[in-house]
Amino acid sequence: MEYRIEKDTMGEVKVPADKLWGAQTERSRNNFKIGPAASMPLEIVYGFAYLKKAAAYTNEAAGVLSTEKRDFIAKACDEILEGKHDDQFPLVIWQTGSGTQSNMNVNEVIANRAHQIAGKTIGEGEKTLLPNDDVNKSQSSNDTFPTGMHIATYKKIVEVTIPGVKQLRDTLQKKSEDFKNVVKIGRTHFMDATPLTLGQEFGGYVSQLDHGLKALKATLPHLAELALGGTAVGTGLNTPKGYAVNVAKFIADFTELPFTSAENKFEALAAHDALVESHGALKQLAVSLNKIGNDIRMLASGPRSGIGEIIIPANEPGSSIMPGKVNPTQCEALTMVCAQVMGNDVAISVGGMQGQFELNVFKPVMAANLLQSAQLIGDACASFEEHCANGIEPNQERINELLQNSLMLVTALNTKIGYYKAAEIANTAHKNGTTLKEEAVNLGYTTAEEFDDWVKPEDMVGEIK
Amino acid sequence: MEYRIEKDTMGEVKVPADKLWGAQTERSRNNFKIGPAASMPLEIVYGFAYLKKAAAYTNEAAGVLSTEKRDFIAKACDEILEGKHDDQFPLVIWQTGSGTQSNMNVNEVIANRAHQIAGKTIGEGEKTLLPNDDVNKSQSSNDTFPTGMHIATYKKIVEVTIPGVKQLRDTLQKKSEDFKNVVKIGRTHFMDATPLTLGQEFGGYVSQLDHGLKALKATLPHLAELALGGTAVGTGLNTPKGYAVNVAKFIADFTELPFTSAENKFEALAAHDALVESHGALKQLAVSLNKIGNDIRMLASGPRSGIGEIIIPANEPGSSIMPGKVNPTQCEALTMVCAQVMGNDVAISVGGMQGQFELNVFKPVMAANLLQSAQLIGDACASFEEHCANGIEPNQERINELLQNSLMLVTALNTKIGYYKAAEIANTAHKNGTTLKEEAVNLGYTTAEEFDDWVKPEDMVGEIK
Amino acid sequence: MEYRIEKDTMGEVKVPADKLWGAQTERSRNNFKIGPAASMPLEIVYGFAYLKKAAAYTNEAAGVLSTEKRDFIAKACDEILEGKHDDQFPLVIWQTGSGTQSNMNVNEVIANRAHQIAGKTIGEGEKTLLPNDDVNKSQSSNDTFPTGMHIATYKKIVEVTIPGVKQLRDTLQKKSEDFKNVVKIGRTHFMDATPLTLGQEFGGYVSQLDHGLKALKATLPHLAELALGGTAVGTGLNTPKGYAVNVAKFIADFTELPFTSAENKFEALAAHDALVESHGALKQLAVSLNKIGNDIRMLASGPRSGIGEIIIPANEPGSSIMPGKVNPTQCEALTMVCAQVMGNDVAISVGGMQGQFELNVFKPVMAANLLQSAQLIGDACASFEEHCANGIEPNQERINELLQNSLMLVTALNTKIGYYKAAEIANTAHKNGTTLKEEAVNLGYTTAEEFDDWVKPEDMVGEIK
Amino acid sequence: MEYRIEKDTMGEVKVPADKLWGAQTERSRNNFKIGPAASMPLEIVYGFAYLKKAAAYTNEAAGVLSTEKRDFIAKACDEILEGKHDDQFPLVIWQTGSGTQSNMNVNEVIANRAHQIAGKTIGEGEKTLLPNDDVNKSQSSNDTFPTGMHIATYKKIVEVTIPGVKQLRDTLQKKSEDFKNVVKIGRTHFMDATPLTLGQEFGGYVSQLDHGLKALKATLPHLAELALGGTAVGTGLNTPKGYAVNVAKFIADFTELPFTSAENKFEALAAHDALVESHGALKQLAVSLNKIGNDIRMLASGPRSGIGEIIIPANEPGSSIMPGKVNPTQCEALTMVCAQVMGNDVAISVGGMQGQFELNVFKPVMAANLLQSAQLIGDACASFEEHCANGIEPNQERINELLQNSLMLVTALNTKIGYYKAAEIANTAHKNGTTLKEEAVNLGYTTAEEFDDWVKPEDMVGEIK
Repeated sequence: MEYRIEKDTMGEVKVPADKLWGAQTERSRNNFKIGPAASMPLEIVYGFAYLKKAAAYTNEAAGVLSTEKRDFIAKACDEILEGKHDDQFPLVIWQTGSGTQSNMNVNEVIANRAHQIAGKTIGEGEKTLLPNDDVNKSQSSNDTFPTGMHIATYKKIVEVTIPGVKQLRDTLQKKSEDFKNVVKIGRTHFMDATPLTLGQEFGGYVSQLDHGLKALKATLPHLAELALGGTAVGTGLNTPKGYAVNVAKFIADFTELPFTSAENKFEALAAHDALVESHGALKQLAVSLNKIGNDIRMLASGPRSGIGEIIIPANEPGSSIMPGKVNPTQCEALTMVCAQVMGNDVAISVGGMQGQFELNVFKPVMAANLLQSAQLIGDACASFEEHCANGIEPNQERINELLQNSLMLVTALNTKIGYYKAAEIANTAHKNGTTLKEEAVNLGYTTAEEFDDWVKPEDMVGEIK
Repeated sequence: MEYRIEKDTMGEVKVPADKLWGAQTERSRNNFKIGPAASMPLEIVYGFAYLKKAAAYTNEAAGVLSTEKRDFIAKACDEILEGKHDDQFPLVIWQTGSGTQSNMNVNEVIANRAHQIAGKTIGEGEKTLLPNDDVNKSQSSNDTFPTGMHIATYKKIVEVTIPGVKQLRDTLQKKSEDFKNVVKIGRTHFMDATPLTLGQEFGGYVSQLDHGLKALKATLPHLAELALGGTAVGTGLNTPKGYAVNVAKFIADFTELPFTSAENKFEALAAHDALVESHGALKQLAVSLNKIGNDIRMLASGPRSGIGEIIIPANEPGSSIMPGKVNPTQCEALTMVCAQVMGNDVAISVGGMQGQFELNVFKPVMAANLLQSAQLIGDACASFEEHCANGIEPNQERINELLQNSLMLVTALNTKIGYYKAAEIANTAHKNGTTLKEEAVNLGYTTAEEFDDWVKPEDMVGEIK
Repeated sequence: MEYRIEKDTMGEVKVPADKLWGAQTERSRNNFKIGPAASMPLEIVYGFAYLKKAAAYTNEAAGVLSTEKRDFIAKACDEILEGKHDDQFPLVIWQTGSGTQSNMNVNEVIANRAHQIAGKTIGEGEKTLLPNDDVNKSQSSNDTFPTGMHIATYKKIVEVTIPGVKQLRDTLQKKSEDFKNVVKIGRTHFMDATPLTLGQEFGGYVSQLDHGLKALKATLPHLAELALGGTAVGTGLNTPKGYAVNVAKFIADFTELPFTSAENKFEALAAHDALVESHGALKQLAVSLNKIGNDIRMLASGPRSGIGEIIIPANEPGSSIMPGKVNPTQCEALTMVCAQVMGNDVAISVGGMQGQFELNVFKPVMAANLLQSAQLIGDACASFEEHCANGIEPNQERINELLQNSLMLVTALNTKIGYYKAAEIANTAHKNGTTLKEEAVNLGYTTAEEFDDWVKPEDMVGEIK
Repeated sequence: MEYRIEKDTMGEVKVPADKLWGAQTERSRNNFKIGPAASMPLEIVYGFAYLKKAAAYTNEAAGVLSTEKRDFIAKACDEILEGKHDDQFPLVIWQTGSGTQSNMNVNEVIANRAHQIAGKTIGEGEKTLLPNDDVNKSQSSNDTFPTGMHIATYKKIVEVTIPGVKQLRDTLQKKSEDFKNVVKIGRTHFMDATPLTLGQEFGGYVSQLDHGLKALKATLPHLAELALGGTAVGTGLNTPKGYAVNVAKFIADFTELPFTSAENKFEALAAHDALVESHGALKQLAVSLNKIGNDIRMLASGPRSGIGEIIIPANEPGSSIMPGKVNPTQCEALTMVCAQVMGNDVAISVGGMQGQFELNVFKPVMAANLLQSAQLIGDACASFEEHCANGIEPNQERINELLQNSLMLVTALNTKIGYYKAAEIANTAHKNGTTLKEEAVNLGYTTAEEFDDWVKPEDMVGEIK
């Protein structure tokens, strides 16, 4: 491989000649061989591209950067955002905890790419841009990395998570309406209970997701707060007047998202409670989705020896050994995602709780986990909707069979003959393997007519909305 | 011990003669010898007392309960709320997961106490109230227990957690103002960095708690939703018309808190995402408090070989072997509480994710963990405020000494001579053990006058608000 | 209330006159009003009683403590171990993270009680024992508290956890043997699968618990290592020669458990990985028990609309509203315990990871969580065994019905006609609602005789051991 | 793109013409667009390659597979293990929870590749091997996937984790010996305490890692148990006699690792406690490493305003804004890894606890998290050793300065003048800003000679080993 020599304040480094990155990126590549290469999420690199461009515009407007340099930076950032340089960001999550090296990776790539855009050859001639003095002007890793991770995670949540959850929520809502007259047995403690409609059952899922979406959206204002302008420790040292507010406006413009300048920059560098907060809501969604996925798996169980009250789409052969088997695979993918999100929540919290003084140095691990959870929940909900929820149908025959057998219909008699006599009827029918009606009449607690009049499953499900 | 005989639908049970509880409570006592007795939090019992009284009022208004019975129930509930029967609730958290047995414990105590209030002897004469048909009328364990736990946790959060956190937040805010002119060295990566004020440092803590309180309050509307009226599976079977809305109003009246009837009762029984949501915010606070507690412990470290920039109150001898030692004990209590809350969050989420069909049967463990976290955070913040934060003073001499030595003041030169020359100055001074000024002049990058003019710590801390 | 005056190195403190504790305990009571009083587990106090007595014996043997003082200490410790002074330990978990104040609580109670034993009145006359110089001789909180918590947790695990798990394991093993000929349908992905015996199903549970017990026992040697002799920072300052090894021997003698002196005292003070390790095994057991509890709940579901393959004991009325309902309440208590243990694992790990330099100051929270988990698992297993597992019976009729209907019996044909034709049979039977045999013959893949010969559930369960 | 038609039991599927996979892989690709493509770890694919080859050998030896077919399978497996087909495994973690589709992916690739090896064109001519009947013979996804994940994780732990941790452990041990005479101040509660040697401090770290390695190795026997031979539900249906034991022997041969056949196959399919167990040990290591990484970060803090007792290598410029800054970046990478492992532990436990009946369907998420943790810990330890631990040197000047000033040296006087007088000396010196010696003499508790004789830091560190 061919190399060129790049320099930083510690000396010279050999860099692959065909790469845009510089000395510090190369040092990091060599010093942090931990896990697979390039694990730092590209979404964060893109977040940097937005903020570097915004910083250039703000610096230019403040008179501390030439218009020419601004445009070089902006052009390089635009190319990064178009995905043209995805292979120029080889660093890993497991680097310095401030993400300094990824900030420098971006600075170096922009500076070297600008040199090319200027028609020059990297390593030759006067540098078009200096990574630290120009590209990083009015910035520190300590405020850029949190800004980049807020941009990346905010975008992911509004572009992937919320639409995915909403897609599932809407289909479940439609199913809830479609199934509003399907009266079926209820189950509490996994034991037979009084009836409800299948629509009501699905309506509970919708309500869970509605609450979850509301909770997630409530965390966005904290996530919209950007650290940029705090520089090294939060004081804004070496920034021109008005910089923090203006740079946030440019970022809001470029991303078309309501980003604002964090009111308190000291918090914004030293703590990432905003990530903890947003991920708390993702975890809440995971808790909800695990319940939904597990319920649907169990409702669809069978085909002949399970609950079997609903039929889910058969998307693939289910077994490599049992011919003809169909499995609730989308439920399984969904609930595995939930397990991951549960774990990620701890990783993020453990990172978030260990900030020291003016800096939290668990930034990359926190951001990467949040991005993963946000992506997985959005994708898994969409996949589950498309390949499972959307095709769910009631197994009406099975539903009726189970409903008619249920001993818990006896509950309708509580208000007529009292809990204790009703219990006697149910217990006797259970013991004798008979019907409630038989025993109600045998015990002399109701006439047959009264029983038929009082015990109607369709009257036991409340007002159907 | 003397016993009397109590009966339920399964038969007779011997109950200690001096106790108000009945057959089902006694069965549970015998069947669940898991951990210490009476671990079910009294707060939940009180939540039940509110809701039983509210149900009685609602039932009476709906014409399904006599006024006399209503008043017996209300009187017994009031006594419970006055703490007169705290020893009548011997059950444990680790019982049926719907809390049925604690519901019956309350039903039985109210029924037996009403019998006494009516001037009769328990076990003799016609029963004044039936536990299921009267006290539990229009109710199920499945909707009462979640209602009881929402009442209990909501009250705990607004009465203990929020005031405790606010007490600490206000003192930190006051300290932030008091210390607004105390310029000190900053630390990033636990390494010397550019200066800030001690007030700014504390202001970051305030901002964390402000965000945390906001996040916690945002969860309260979900927690204010009450399941009552859903009865067995969410359909409201066996409730009079208008019951759910009316009973929530009575509860709101009695507690003076803004409780409402949950719009979706199926969710309210089958999932407890509201607890997951509120505890997510408590965990966020724990993450913040751990950072604050650890920072203050480190800032106060010494007295001679640590950071030593602040002085915290000496509340007790610190060591049983090292004479004269004073330790940051309040920080330690606080951060231990944070560790507990981190764990409780997982317990609650694991419980919350495992609901099945119409019922989540991890109610007691979820409620108990939330109550513990809410209590501990509130108490620990108040204790930390009173015995530590309130007495924090800067160690001005030490702060000045560390500030003057700092090599990171060189950052002020970036905008004058560029990052790379500034780095050379700092590296040289570090190597030679000299001052920045000496090396800046030696290297010919600034004059002595320029250096003094450009490198002023007090000008490096931004606009002090 | 009456008070007396006690003194420590910081001055005078008023202490309730009828209490044995002294100044430092009282300071802690006042300074740490966090959560319920006296939350520090008594098991740890007893651990202290063992070690204080052992230290006295070791000191006496080394010639640094008089025989008379040794005997006073030993007598007071014996009384504590007899439970005579349980109300003299009012402190909370949420105190100094080294547990210093609980160490002093024990020192003070022993000293004052010795004064009484000597026939004197507390606060009068020459002190019989000095809390620090005599009772705490050759000790520090930093080595006594970890020693106390190792003694407490080791005892809990061998006296409660292991016997409880073993009791359940043995009953499940017996059931596995009892059910070894009960052929039933298997379920994978919660869908019908090839058959196995109920005995095999239960045998899987036994194997889980066997592995779990093995894992738990493998952690005991680390837990048996005692910090005592390390004193303040691990160097053993102020201890007589041979002290560490000798004191461990006395503790081993007194407790009749194989305690040893930790080879590395620096680890033993600064890190509590032994607790992390043991709790890791408890968490593994919780993972196993959650699976077992949930399986049994589902196998017992019904009585008419669930799986219903086993019958579990009915211990109490299941519902306050649904008459005649019986619920798997022991499964619920067990799985709630598992959720708690999952959470406690995080609390312990978060505490364990935050030691700093020579001391971990999350000792009380770590020990309390481990004690709780160890108690709950042991108790819950015993309760589950006694009130549920022990009474489990197969529902043979239901098992046969489900087995005969199963389409997955077709798997037996794979080796005869290949996977692809077998799948065609199963799919056709599923679509037509017919039997495998009908379709196998219709499709011409087997004769009726071949089918009967090849598809025998009892031949599909492997070698039954 | 060009396609060919592949078939499975559900019908025809278009597959990219240049790919070796078949219908079921392609279905999975389309049905599970969750997160980045090909996230299923290649290590698991390699695990499959070992077991498919072993199954072929076992089947051939049992007379149920031709030698020719065996050799085709073996050849294709060998190619996979050589990394020649890494791009043929496009599936994701978030698929069916049994990993069925990855099993089929391997079956299909082997079958198609064998066809090529036989000199034929995929899709043309009689199939050389059938994916289910030949490649998957005597197997099910339910026993192959757990076998594949045990092979993959066992190999990762012994090839990456243990060597990495050991490399760090050995260097820390060497440092411990190098620093055995460097007497320095101790710190408890982050406050000045009695002295110890830097070697002792590092020795504590070594002891933590020794215990951690021991704990990790103790989990390997459980992980060495292979499910293969259980087939669909654990009964071993459709396997030839002796298959399970023999196939494990072949796997042990091929991998040169001590794999055995799981004694209980029902557990081996339905529960993955072995993964929970091994990851528990990885989490314990993470707890230890977090303490070590944080300690070293703090010991190295400064250069002028921190603890500064050790000097760590400067590997890269530390700050993009603060010139000359060097940061403990390896500590940060290491502790971020620890946070991730803490989270992964919860993901694995949550997956492990949710098995149902004969199958746990959280296999891929459990295996992927364990592989990640095992890789990250191994890599991070090696990186930390090479780029940090290996170059640590004491800052002798700073160490001496802090040691001499320490008030906690007073502890040496306890055995001479008692705790209470010693405390008075320390408190007075602290208050007056004087030395212990001055105050000891002033107070008349020692002579100057006695003080010098009794208070020698080098005598306070115990027997140096």
